[in-house]
Amino acid sequence: MDGYFFEDLSVGQSASFGKTITEADILLFAGVSGDTNPVHINAEAAAASMFKERIAHGMLSASLISTVLGTRLPGAGTIYLGQNLKFRAPVKIGETVTATVTVTTLDAAKKRVTLTTVCTVAGKTVIDGEATVMVPSRA
Amino acid sequence: MDGYFFEDLSVGQSASFGKTITEADILLFAGVSGDTNPVHINAEAAAASMFKERIAHGMLSASLISTVLGTRLPGAGTIYLGQNLKFRAPVKIGETVTATVTVTTLDAAKKRVTLTTVCTVAGKTVIDGEATVMVPSRA
Repeated sequence: MDGYFFEDLSVGQSASFGKTITEADILLFAGVSGDTNPVHINAEAAAASMFKERIAHGMLSASLISTVLGTRLPGAGTIYLGQNLKFRAPVKIGETVTATVTVTTLDAAKKRVTLTTVCTVAGKTVIDGEATVMVPSRA
Repeated sequence: MDGYFFEDLSVGQSASFGKTITEADILLFAGVSGDTNPVHINAEAAAASMFKERIAHGMLSASLISTVLGTRLPGAGTIYLGQNLKFRAPVKIGETVTATVTVTTLDAAKKRVTLTTVCTVAGKTVIDGEATVMVPSRA
């Protein structure tokens, strides 16, 4: 494991992960989750919906937050305790989602860290929220 | 689309979706999300972790909540506005996760619905939280 230790973290520290959401991602996510809502997998039904075309599962974009937390900041060794999500806008096929996490509070007694978690497409927020994680101590 | 209309919903209404989490699910989820945290994909690193073996991504289990909301209750046509998640326990390969949502409040003015959202493995809670959705009106 090679993530940050609790002692290495400071308020304001930030990291990002970006990924283009392809049609293949949506199909694989539908298979893994079982979420076959027509707005994700049925082009005709999606065209008749308020979204006008197929959109990605909100949880697919949200999963990029977990990616940043588990692989970059704090990184491997992080224990995911909680996540709040507000879905602000849909993500369409071919759009690139960037998840950014920023440390906001550090609880040294419990080794808990809270981070704001924002997903954007071309600078526009599509998801925002907050994560709570526990991070190993160097000691 | 064939989900419930707002007028068809009542407090206490409930629905579930269960899925066994396989190694293939974890590998596909790692590919879709980019979350290659070793605790999910590296058996040796996971054996040395507090979990003792590979575990599923928390967001993979959480995605089953979206499945219930988007395909069963309220079903197709539902707009996902928000989700709070508390990760209570890890999910291991081969375990069957059941996501259950239960309507708790109905806001007729805004057509908004809140639901408790719980994921269990063999009756034990692994995730709990709350969802907020908007549901189309019959009118």
